[in-house]
Amino acid sequence: MKKMKAVVKTKPGPGAELIDIEIPVPGPDDVLVKVLATSICGTDLHIYEWNEWAQNRIKKIPQIMGHELCGEVLELGADVKNINVGDIISAETHIACGHCYLCHTGKAHICINGRIFGVDLDGVFAEYAIVPSSNAWVLDKKIRRDFASVMEPLGNAVHTVLAGEITGNTVLITGCGPIGVMSVAVTRLCGATKIIVTELNEYRRKMAKKAGADLVLNPKQEDVVQRILQETNGLGVDVVLEMSGAPTAIQQGFDALRPGGRFSILGIPDKSMEIDLGKTIVFKYATVQGINGRLMFSTWYKTSRFLSSGRLDLEPIITHRFRLDEFEKGMELMKSGNCGKVLLYPHPKT
Amino acid sequence: MKKMKAVVKTKPGPGAELIDIEIPVPGPDDVLVKVLATSICGTDLHIYEWNEWAQNRIKKIPQIMGHELCGEVLELGADVKNINVGDIISAETHIACGHCYLCHTGKAHICINGRIFGVDLDGVFAEYAIVPSSNAWVLDKKIRRDFASVMEPLGNAVHTVLAGEITGNTVLITGCGPIGVMSVAVTRLCGATKIIVTELNEYRRKMAKKAGADLVLNPKQEDVVQRILQETNGLGVDVVLEMSGAPTAIQQGFDALRPGGRFSILGIPDKSMEIDLGKTIVFKYATVQGINGRLMFSTWYKTSRFLSSGRLDLEPIITHRFRLDEFEKGMELMKSGNCGKVLLYPHPKT
Amino acid sequence: MKKMKAVVKTKPGPGAELIDIEIPVPGPDDVLVKVLATSICGTDLHIYEWNEWAQNRIKKIPQIMGHELCGEVLELGADVKNINVGDIISAETHIACGHCYLCHTGKAHICINGRIFGVDLDGVFAEYAIVPSSNAWVLDKKIRRDFASVMEPLGNAVHTVLAGEITGNTVLITGCGPIGVMSVAVTRLCGATKIIVTELNEYRRKMAKKAGADLVLNPKQEDVVQRILQETNGLGVDVVLEMSGAPTAIQQGFDALRPGGRFSILGIPDKSMEIDLGKTIVFKYATVQGINGRLMFSTWYKTSRFLSSGRLDLEPIITHRFRLDEFEKGMELMKSGNCGKVLLYPHPKT
Amino acid sequence: MKKMKAVVKTKPGPGAELIDIEIPVPGPDDVLVKVLATSICGTDLHIYEWNEWAQNRIKKIPQIMGHELCGEVLELGADVKNINVGDIISAETHIACGHCYLCHTGKAHICINGRIFGVDLDGVFAEYAIVPSSNAWVLDKKIRRDFASVMEPLGNAVHTVLAGEITGNTVLITGCGPIGVMSVAVTRLCGATKIIVTELNEYRRKMAKKAGADLVLNPKQEDVVQRILQETNGLGVDVVLEMSGAPTAIQQGFDALRPGGRFSILGIPDKSMEIDLGKTIVFKYATVQGINGRLMFSTWYKTSRFLSSGRLDLEPIITHRFRLDEFEKGMELMKSGNCGKVLLYPHPKT
Repeated sequence: MKKMKAVVKTKPGPGAELIDIEIPVPGPDDVLVKVLATSICGTDLHIYEWNEWAQNRIKKIPQIMGHELCGEVLELGADVKNINVGDIISAETHIACGHCYLCHTGKAHICINGRIFGVDLDGVFAEYAIVPSSNAWVLDKKIRRDFASVMEPLGNAVHTVLAGEITGNTVLITGCGPIGVMSVAVTRLCGATKIIVTELNEYRRKMAKKAGADLVLNPKQEDVVQRILQETNGLGVDVVLEMSGAPTAIQQGFDALRPGGRFSILGIPDKSMEIDLGKTIVFKYATVQGINGRLMFSTWYKTSRFLSSGRLDLEPIITHRFRLDEFEKGMELMKSGNCGKVLLYPHPKT
Repeated sequence: MKKMKAVVKTKPGPGAELIDIEIPVPGPDDVLVKVLATSICGTDLHIYEWNEWAQNRIKKIPQIMGHELCGEVLELGADVKNINVGDIISAETHIACGHCYLCHTGKAHICINGRIFGVDLDGVFAEYAIVPSSNAWVLDKKIRRDFASVMEPLGNAVHTVLAGEITGNTVLITGCGPIGVMSVAVTRLCGATKIIVTELNEYRRKMAKKAGADLVLNPKQEDVVQRILQETNGLGVDVVLEMSGAPTAIQQGFDALRPGGRFSILGIPDKSMEIDLGKTIVFKYATVQGINGRLMFSTWYKTSRFLSSGRLDLEPIITHRFRLDEFEKGMELMKSGNCGKVLLYPHPKT
Repeated sequence: MKKMKAVVKTKPGPGAELIDIEIPVPGPDDVLVKVLATSICGTDLHIYEWNEWAQNRIKKIPQIMGHELCGEVLELGADVKNINVGDIISAETHIACGHCYLCHTGKAHICINGRIFGVDLDGVFAEYAIVPSSNAWVLDKKIRRDFASVMEPLGNAVHTVLAGEITGNTVLITGCGPIGVMSVAVTRLCGATKIIVTELNEYRRKMAKKAGADLVLNPKQEDVVQRILQETNGLGVDVVLEMSGAPTAIQQGFDALRPGGRFSILGIPDKSMEIDLGKTIVFKYATVQGINGRLMFSTWYKTSRFLSSGRLDLEPIITHRFRLDEFEKGMELMKSGNCGKVLLYPHPKT
Repeated sequence: MKKMKAVVKTKPGPGAELIDIEIPVPGPDDVLVKVLATSICGTDLHIYEWNEWAQNRIKKIPQIMGHELCGEVLELGADVKNINVGDIISAETHIACGHCYLCHTGKAHICINGRIFGVDLDGVFAEYAIVPSSNAWVLDKKIRRDFASVMEPLGNAVHTVLAGEITGNTVLITGCGPIGVMSVAVTRLCGATKIIVTELNEYRRKMAKKAGADLVLNPKQEDVVQRILQETNGLGVDVVLEMSGAPTAIQQGFDALRPGGRFSILGIPDKSMEIDLGKTIVFKYATVQGINGRLMFSTWYKTSRFLSSGRLDLEPIITHRFRLDEFEKGMELMKSGNCGKVLLYPHPKT
């Protein structure tokens, strides 16, 4: 078959290579897509940098990197229904078994047998890619292709924001990387009435402001817990959305949470931390939620509607666009923190 | 004591009179307020017109009419705490006993022993009024006084909109009187992604559009159920907010609701109607909610925050302002339907 | 292929025939089962009697009747995974498309393209039957085969009881046919603290008592609304589970419901009825839920666990057992109302 | 006024004294009760032993100890309504201000200005005691007086068990002290289908079994996490109710929880512990809830109905009864762990 260019993790260790490989052939339940746009996730950076998590998690090498995309369907596997050649799609990256207790009870996103593109199997940093038909999300024509590429991480933000009450709430978002800033925009859209952000990076603090934050704080410059208590009549915020994975931010979040509040965690600390459960959770009557993935597919419907209705504008959040062969620039930028979402275009003339 | 002007229902029958009566004296748990603004509710119009409902419901005559207000606290009853002279307040109009099963389980707004201002006891269409301290809502200084006067009906809208999921939902609002149009604005604020309104009156259809509706339909001019099904890929809307009390609109709402949808009713039909429960509710797996009052006081906190944050603008909804002595003009206007909220000012120079 | 005996609706009109037909061949996603036990549903009786609903609903004739079963898997279609020959199964009878908005958002039981065994396609009143593998429910070995046969209607009861809060609640169950009496047992198991039943048929009133009802009332002999108000300090019940489809019972249920209560309807009235929405729902702040089917598959997990744990005993509820060729006796018995669940055994020696 | 006997913390340090003090006089909103029965809580033991928590928390000395009681109303304060002399009461021990955000939004039990009997003000280990009328819970006559005395801690158990889904769930209860064993009984009553308990003390393991646990494990004798995974097909339990406050048990609870499960914590660890949030909560999509107090008064209604309906039997849980002057025996017994609830009778002949 014909060849295509792809960003491939060719060996265990830092880096990746842009190489020519065969265009894959879809299985009976898959579709083959032309990748119109793809975007870089923090997970991709971890795999690229080959950090400890990646060393333990990535089993298959060589492997095409990447999992966020917008693609055009070119070919259908033999058993595929409900998708047509020519459809423009995004994709859910958690592939669920469909048979386990979790799949059967509305939690397919944490399927006990789940696999992930670009982590457990070949990804989408390539000119063409395979997507299981069950995971292809056919797009409403009103949704822009660049926005479509970032619907997967946007879905993380939507999932976290909507994991409890948000309308009319005072919300603290700790950490304002790409998903953090999306969470700001979504929180605003959902009618939260005060949105506070803590973030160390100046570029990202500015993005947070543009995305709709009411108050953006630099934890290096002030005592953010005291400030948040002042801003909330001494009570604390109703909701914390943890997007940093940083132990300091997590502790500040707990300290700034009002009694009976919600603390939803999407950020992943890379090691254990000390927590005083009595003070932090029990006496505070707090609810702490671990979040990952996207509800399949409630979150996708909501995310799509936010975009197709024009209610949600990602323009301030997609900050950089490169050709696929410039992926190293994108990785460096992600590393620096001076960016929102970074897109890669495998077919730049498209 | 000194006298004041008040709009009083002096006898059983149509109409009301502006007369001079004694300024009331607060009981130990009451506050006396100077009424800065008051507004006309549909209920006031029913009492003014003396319709069948009013004839059965109103026991105390003579009675000062009205229940929506913004006032300044002039005097405190002996046992009042947590309120100060000079506070600017709005008021919850459902007075709860505090001791019954419903009060004890988070449903004080439907207290088994509940009473209502301007219905069961003297109201606020007057220069001064008595408010039980438990029902006074001290205002954030950022909230405009005219907006404060309509917080009670706005709370009805907020209560109805937030009685279930709304963000990312497609919503039909049947009937766009003052609370209907407030519901449009609140639904928009809460991130609903398609807001459809049906309304017979042209003035109100225009208001709905200004308040944020995506599509405003005239049931006299088109088959609204067919149109709504077209607009929703044949599925129907996720949520219906019934604000008309009209049997035709209610049936259209049921027909336009998707399977598994929410149907929240604030409008009150004045008589029984035929309903095919099997088709309308059971096979459709619909959830039908009766709504009245406001959650005491979750709804008030949310309503306040919508206003004090500047997220919610009632300017397009407050359409007319009169002096208290012009109350008959206000009543006529309400009757015509060519208005949003109508305010009355007892102290016009304030 | 070999022949089998089956109860077939051979023509539009009352009755059905036991005839010999070919044993069906499973498609790629189906399993072929030996029917160990099957049971008669009210729907089967409607089809047998050929009432107005059946005349409008049943399109395919001839058709094998029946949808409740316990079966042993004899043969697997080519694409079937997760099921083995020899497995003992029950079956979910709503066949969902898996692709529509409702399937995608946790409501597969009301799939827009849904089909039902024994209604839209051949059923299970036969020696052998086809079950789509997606709908086969492999049984825990601790579950008795007769109990397994009635898991589908039991799931209706479980779905209705658990559609809102039940533990520590006072519950009225209107109508005590087979699913009504199952609802009594499930309500008891879930920790409801007062269970009241209204039922006209004496046989069924006795069953209700055995299944765990605290108070069983005969609406012919006393004013049940007054009695229920007395039993609840004048407040009314927290929850009504409507299992009769009878307008009188439905109205009594609404009148006996406390303000803010839950009214869940599984019974299907065969025509429209007059409802005063204002009094019955709006002022009462009632929540009315239409229920049908079973959550796929949360309800099945719960139902299975109730049985496999031994917490739920259906012995008092399965009242009659016949050979398949005696199906007419079963139908007559169902018609009389003097029964709980009626089982049919196609292979009586098993 | 006349004197009474009371167990009083007379000085900062271990122990307490039974002394004669004046019978207190009720304020305008209080009632004076004759204490018919009172019971010892773990908190009382902490104060008695004068542990670090008590040293930091107890400000008022001398202070009458104790907070759980059943009493007969002898005298009403001037403003008390809704309670009568002769009523038999239990009492909610969290005294809420009624005015703060938390009181106003259904969370009075974590009132920002909250105070607690026997901790912040005089308690009930005495012949007579003062109870604020807002906190007196008038008992249904069917409830036994000894059961009434322990309704407050029973309410903790009910609150924890019902803080999420429980019916049809597999539940692990870590720690089986008095509230742990009550939780077993309540969990059983609510229809949980497998109840597993871990507990070090043999006496308490036997109690757990009697109260309805399906499986009782000794963490000293086996790897409880492995065992629980075996018992749940490798999935883990749906719900953990943490009742021990022991870091080892907490970690075992997290390890034994299934993905997407609920982890409700009532036990209070006396210091910080290391938690791997990523593994324990985020990837696991766990919900962790801090619980304290009782919902005012939903929990009380449910607790009352469990007892008055006879559905809940506390006989196996109330293991020891002493005269008030034997309080030191009770404290020693609590310290040993070889008991369930321990009751003290101030008027032993009653």
